[in-house]
Parts: sequence; C-alpha cells; structure tokens
Amino acid sequence: MKRHDAPVGGAEGVNPSSMALNVHRVKRQLEQLVGKENVSDAEVDRICYSRDTWSLRLMRLGRLVTDPRPDLIVWPQTVEHIQRILRIANAERIPITPVSGGGGVCGGALPTHGGILLDLKKMAAVLHLDDRSLTVTVQPGILGQELEEYLNARGYTLGHYPSSIYSSALGGFAAARSAGVLSSKYGKIEDMITGIEVVLPSGEVLRTKAVPRSSMGPDLKQLFIGSEGSLGIITELTLRICPLPQTTKFASFLFPDLHAGMDAVIRVFREDLKPALVRLYDENETRFVLVRFKSPPQGACVLNFMYSATKELVQLESRTVARICGAAGAEALGPGPSKHWWDNRFDLYYPSNLNLGPGMLYDVLDVAASFANLEKMYWEMRRAIEAVGVNTMSHFSHFYPDGGNIYVIFIGAGGSPEEVEAKYEQVWNTGLEAAQRAGGTLSHQHGVGLLKAQWMPTEHGAAGFALLQAIKRHLDPNNILNPGKLGLGGEERTKA
Amino acid sequence: MKRHDAPVGGAEGVNPSSMALNVHRVKRQLEQLVGKENVSDAEVDRICYSRDTWSLRLMRLGRLVTDPRPDLIVWPQTVEHIQRILRIANAERIPITPVSGGGGVCGGALPTHGGILLDLKKMAAVLHLDDRSLTVTVQPGILGQELEEYLNARGYTLGHYPSSIYSSALGGFAAARSAGVLSSKYGKIEDMITGIEVVLPSGEVLRTKAVPRSSMGPDLKQLFIGSEGSLGIITELTLRICPLPQTTKFASFLFPDLHAGMDAVIRVFREDLKPALVRLYDENETRFVLVRFKSPPQGACVLNFMYSATKELVQLESRTVARICGAAGAEALGPGPSKHWWDNRFDLYYPSNLNLGPGMLYDVLDVAASFANLEKMYWEMRRAIEAVGVNTMSHFSHFYPDGGNIYVIFIGAGGSPEEVEAKYEQVWNTGLEAAQRAGGTLSHQHGVGLLKAQWMPTEHGAAGFALLQAIKRHLDPNNILNPGKLGLGGEERTKA
Repeated sequence: MKRHDAPVGGAEGVNPSSMALNVHRVKRQLEQLVGKENVSDAEVDRICYSRDTWSLRLMRLGRLVTDPRPDLIVWPQTVEHIQRILRIANAERIPITPVSGGGGVCGGALPTHGGILLDLKKMAAVLHLDDRSLTVTVQPGILGQELEEYLNARGYTLGHYPSSIYSSALGGFAAARSAGVLSSKYGKIEDMITGIEVVLPSGEVLRTKAVPRSSMGPDLKQLFIGSEGSLGIITELTLRICPLPQTTKFASFLFPDLHAGMDAVIRVFREDLKPALVRLYDENETRFVLVRFKSPPQGACVLNFMYSATKELVQLESRTVARICGAAGAEALGPGPSKHWWDNRFDLYYPSNLNLGPGMLYDVLDVAASFANLEKMYWEMRRAIEAVGVNTMSHFSHFYPDGGNIYVIFIGAGGSPEEVEAKYEQVWNTGLEAAQRAGGTLSHQHGVGLLKAQWMPTEHGAAGFALLQAIKRHLDPNNILNPGKLGLGGEERTKA
Repeated sequence: MKRHDAPVGGAEGVNPSSMALNVHRVKRQLEQLVGKENVSDAEVDRICYSRDTWSLRLMRLGRLVTDPRPDLIVWPQTVEHIQRILRIANAERIPITPVSGGGGVCGGALPTHGGILLDLKKMAAVLHLDDRSLTVTVQPGILGQELEEYLNARGYTLGHYPSSIYSSALGGFAAARSAGVLSSKYGKIEDMITGIEVVLPSGEVLRTKAVPRSSMGPDLKQLFIGSEGSLGIITELTLRICPLPQTTKFASFLFPDLHAGMDAVIRVFREDLKPALVRLYDENETRFVLVRFKSPPQGACVLNFMYSATKELVQLESRTVARICGAAGAEALGPGPSKHWWDNRFDLYYPSNLNLGPGMLYDVLDVAASFANLEKMYWEMRRAIEAVGVNTMSHFSHFYPDGGNIYVIFIGAGGSPEEVEAKYEQVWNTGLEAAQRAGGTLSHQHGVGLLKAQWMPTEHGAAGFALLQAIKRHLDPNNILNPGKLGLGGEERTKA
C-alpha cells in the first residue's frame, strides 16, 4: 500500500522533522490566540483526527493500526484567528490540515506530516438569509443537516442531501465538490455557490462577489471549489436556496435491461424536465433494492424517481415519465421501491462506515461520463473490478441532460491485512484505469484526497496539472496548506 | 480619453518598438507556416482589425481617427499552426491578439501594441455532434448563427441567442462569458460549456474532459472561460445542446411600476419554472417598446415572456405566469409586444452599431446583481448617469432564481469630439461606481476588454486580482498574449 500511504505530493518546504522541537512553542502561540480550551494535543484527539470516513483508514482502525496524526488540533472562531494561524504556520514551516465535518471518504482531511489540524466546527453560523435573492450565507463548519433544518423551518431548502448530511459540513462540501442525492434538480454544490470567501495561505482574504452571473473575467471561485484545503481555507459561502417543494411523489419502473433504462433516462431529460431524483440500478443492485418487493428477472434494472416541486409540475413530471417508461416496455412498480429507499437511505450508509470485519474490503468508485460513454464505462469498470475477485453492485444516481455518474460498490474478502490492502489498491487501479479509458472523470462527488491524488496528472493532463501546481506554488510557497492533497505541493519530490 | 487608450496593463516583455525591424521576418515565417494567402499586412486589413463593435471606436472611426493597428493579420487553420505562431511570437517578443467573430463591444480583441492579429475565422468546423449526450464540439471560429442553423437542421438548438449572433463566434462567446437573450432557460455560455481545449502561450495544449460534472479538483475551464484571449487561445469547445422546443408562446404584462414587475419575476422563479425569456423594461424603455401597442401610464413597466418548451410545459408556464401577474395587478397585453420584440430584435441592434453622427454618444452598461440589490442598483445607476447629462432607458433581460442583470442604454449629445469622449468616460465611471456601491458585478455578459480593464482590481479585490496576475505571469511570462486585456500583463508598469 505504498501508494495510499505516500501521496504523490510530499511536504517540501514544511519541516516535519523539526516539528517535535517547536510543537510546544506553537501550542503556546495558538493558546494565546484562541484560548487554551480551543487547542489540544491530547492523544485521543490526535487519534480521532487521524481518520475520516475513508474505508481504508476505517479498516486499519479496526486493526488498531496507527496512521499519521496531527501534533495539535485547533478550533478557530473567527476569520482573523485563521489568518493568524496561517501566519504562525508559515513562520514555523509546519503543515495545516483543515477539516469541517470530517465526512470525507478519500482522506482529503487527513494529516500526512503532523502539524496543525484546523477544525472549523466552531465557525458554524448562518450569517444571512436573503429571502428576496433566495440565498443563504454561512460559515464553513455548519453541518449539512443543521443548515437544512434551519432552512426548512423558514420554508426553504438547500436541496443538497448527501448521504453524509449528518456528519459533513458546508466547507467540506465546497472543498470536495460534493453532490447530494437530488442533484438532477438542485445541482451539485458548485452549481449552488454564488459567492465564496477564502483565507489564502498568506493570510490574505479573497472574496468573490455573490452575484447570479458575471463576465468580469475568469470565475475564481471555481478554483477554490474542489481545492480540498490545498489553496486556501474557505471561511464563508453564499449559496442558492429554493422554496420547499409543494409536494413530493415517488415512482419506480422495472426495465428488462440496463440499456433500456438508460434510454428512458435520456428521453426524460429531453422533455425539459428535471425530476429531483433519477436513480438507475444495475442488475446486481436491483435484486438488493427489490428484495422487499419482487424477484426481478435476470438482467432487469430498476429506475427510481422522486418528483419534488409544485403540484402541477409534479403532475407533469409524473405523467411524462410514466409515458416514456411505458413506451420503453418497463413495468410500473408504483411508488414503493423508490419511497422505501428515500425513507431508509441512511440505514445502509452509516453502518457501512464500520469495519466489515477482518479480511474484508469494500469501498465505492464514483465516476462520471457523458451518455455516449456511460454504459461502456460501466461494463468495462465492472469487468475490470470483478476480475480482481470482488463482488460489485452499481447505480447511476446523478443524471444531467448530458450524462451521469456511476457508483460502483465493491465488497470482497482479501485474506491477511497485507492481502486486503493489496487487493483494495488493485480494485481502485484497475477500476479507475477502465474509467479513464472510457473517457470518464475519475470522481463525480467524493473528491481526490489521498486516494486519487496520483490520478490528478492523468485527469487534468500535463498542461492542466502544471497550471494547478503553479497556482499552488504562488499561493502557498512554503507548502503549509494540506500538503500532498490533490497531488499538489510535491513537485520537487516527483522530480527527484 | 487617456483611460480607454492606455489600458491598465501594458505590454512589458513585448517589444513594440522593435516590431518594425522584424515585421518582415515574422511575416515570412508566418507565410511559410500557413501560406501567403493566410497572412496580410495590407493597410485595409490593418484598419479593419483596429476596431470591433465597441461604440467608442466606432464613433472614432466615423471621424476617421486612427486607432492602434496590428502589423500583421494571420489566419491559422490548425491547432498546430496556432502552437507554432505562439512560439514565433515568444521568440520575437511580439504581441498576439486573438479574434473570432469580432462582435465584441468592449475592445477585447483590439491590438494595442501592434503585432499579430490572429483571426480564427478559418477554424470554424463542427467537429462532432453527440446526439446521445446532447453535446456538440466545435472550433472557435464558427459564428453563432452558423452553428445554430447547423443544429436546427438536425432538430437541436444551442439556445444561445445574443443580439450579435450573426457577427460573433463561439470562441469569442467563451472568451467573454457571453449571454444570449434566452439565458433564463438555457444559461450563459459558461453554463453550456462542458469541455474546452486551449493552446497556452507556451504552445502547449490544455484540454479538459468533457463530462457533465467532476470533483477531481478545481474546474480549470472556468479560468479560461472569460479570459478574453489573455491566458490562452481557445481552439475547441464542447457545449450542451437541447432538442428544438415543441412550441413557443409569447405574453406581455403591464405593471404599474418597476417594483411590482420585479416582484412578479421573483415569484415566477419560485414556481420551479424557467421561461425562456423574462424581460422587464423600465418606464423609459417601456414607452419605446409599446409605441405600436398602447400609451402606458406614467411609471408603468412592461414585462415580456417567451415560453419555449414542450407543449405541456409551455401551458404550465403560461398559466402560472398569468396567475402571478394577474394577482400582482398587471394588465395582460397578449402576445403582441413580446412577439414583436422577438421578431424584430435585430432591427435595432445592427443599425445601432453605426455612428449616430457627430457630437453624439451612446453605449450600454451591462451589470448584474442579486435580487436584494438589483432595484437599488438600477435607481442609483440611473440617477448617476442621467446627472452627467445623457438620457437612459433600461431593461432587465437576464433573470436567474437569485437575481438578474441591468442593461442601461445611454444616448446623449456631447459637443466636440473631445467633449464627447470625456462625457462618455464620465458616464461609464459614474455608472460603474454606482453599480459597485450597490454590490453588483460590473459586467453580466459583455466582458472587460479595454473598456473595463481598470475595474478588474475593484471587481476581484486585491487578493483575487493578484492571483489572476500570477496566473498570467506563469502562463505568459513574455506577455505576448493580448497584453493589457483584463488589466493583466502590466504589473511592472502599474508599479512604476
């Protein structure tokens, strides 16, 4: 498992070996800044912050394997705190790893070289609800569920419902380009953000204007959305909100095969409609989804819809989808399977974040492609991954008019801890290689973190990745901010 | 008019004074590369390429005032041509100004320091129509109208209908973050582009994957969309297309005042609907728009809609809008004014691009803001601009759920050429200052060019503008690419 232990990017510039010498000095500086109660070097905290929700780390935690820990945890409460912490880290040449909710599944918020873990949980306020512009301005530490409840109580929704909504926060959503399960209607987080405030590694504050659209040059916020804490620390977000839908309705259809289901999805989007949920399961996951409902024929695939809008629009969506699916030879299953999934969607998510037990491995590949490439990508990934000797089940849960994602879930047995980790890496390598060959992007919503850092040059090409490296060098010359994430901050080591 | 003659950014690195010495050598190199028929130093070409559709330059052209000209015009036909032209320009330290359609209204494609004018008109192919993913891949030189006709013949539309559609091209749309008149439904060009290919100043090619969404780090294409030829030359775009709408319907409503009309717009967007056209006129332009239809009461404002979708969705949009406008006390005017505008929208646009005659000045400020700021911004801009002594009429022609744009048209008399230009500058300064104070962005769709270059630090803030400057320095160390545009490439001069 060399690959996932040692990120592509290293931590040149920072000085981890000297950290032991100055940790007490840094701790005193931080305590003076934010108060003793907001700084910790307790071992229990250091262990807790050595893992997020990345299954590889959870598997190791189950074996009591020690992963790299931060030296100090700090809980800033103001933008000025963050500015001053960054200046301390620059002066001392120590790395900072920012985290908000800690619900990431790729290791994006894991410290790899000790240093400061900067936890944003105490910056969790709703700063402004603009109910004329339908936007809300928040701090990064507010959990998805907290914000949703705040908005619901006032008649609004963000429409961002990731499975991790109870354990992930707005800062992390933006940093990793998160998607909620209703992204067909509401978009991904990058579609919702109209304005951003970021503290740069230098301590300077960069703010973009929160406006619906602009043609005053490039859109800088799209550089920081997805930057996973490597280019700056997000301290404020303004996001579009929507009125709570008047009504919600569910429908499920069973198609004879995946291709027929995919064709129906394509036709729905050609009707100028965007149902809130459009979720197509492959044959393996279909059996799982329908277990309470019916025994599907070999190869059959279920397609779930949720309509969530005004009553009239829900009627139109429902009628149109039924017509399209009927014409395609699908069997109408009523609302049951789709509503059952919606009502119970957390039951699978949270327990699955536990160790399955010794010798087992599991995770999810989340990729995306245009419709022209999507089915081919599915079959090639499935073939490649199953050849490694694990089981898969997959769904396509985020559709747009031009394509969608694939969520390939794999579960298998691996033998010894070393064999488990070797097999885990082989699944990822072979799966992402297949996605890359098929023209897909290697993540739709989970981000890069440590897990996919080595794929960044492939994803962006030599010129694109070099540009990202240059932006990193300019903003963070001492490489203090989340070194190694996105594969950035380690050019010198890569060359050596 | 010092401001608009001398862009904020200069042309450090390039060597305009020595251009006369090497122009023949460069011409020979270009001729060898692309053929004699694709290189020109004819005076008529050099004059033609010294102006775009910027009203200031057209006013000057009417007085036979000479503006800076390119030394050479080159028409490349392949990506490799462009790569090699950039390498020649780097070796010779001469500036390159890229242009596609030439329909810009801010001077973004005007050469300020001589050098090479790189015209992309001969790279105008449709490379691929992907009718499963609903995307089209094109070269930058194809005119908007040419692409639209190509798509219409196959049952599709791009949905991008700027008034300049007959004289502007896809490369320019992307470079300046253009909007079409139906952007409420179809989005702006930055919402349509799923993939981009750019030749960087070094000659390297940067391509982003054309996928519906990605979370593999920052979205680099949003750096080049809006870069106005200063960071790279766009050589390929993949864009979302839509099926041609089943039907189209028009409606107009007369509101007692602007505020009532704006409130109705806000309510329409809360119904999960996005009519293709939502266009609200202020009292001054309302009189102009209704001249064939009725004489409106003092202060009354007309709100035009165009519904363009499936028959059922058009019915729903039409019914919902009529209900909302009726409840707001608006008078239903039938389809007349909206349809008349749609059918005749080019009649005003193209003649207005002629000189109004000696002593007259005119132009359009295109700004945008959230709904919370939009009306305040309108009144403050109008007061500020009319105080300079010109007439205004305005419309809000691009609405989104969180806000919209303002299009402030001004026309006035100025006296001597010097007085005209001084007044023109005063209108822009005072108008944009008012927009800035009201929290708006200083362009919604026209871009920056030379006209708004000095406003870039204000728009992006010190940290944001410094980041753009750093990206420019990294990508274009010799400052050969469209120097001075977006205010980039002139740090040294600004410091001096």
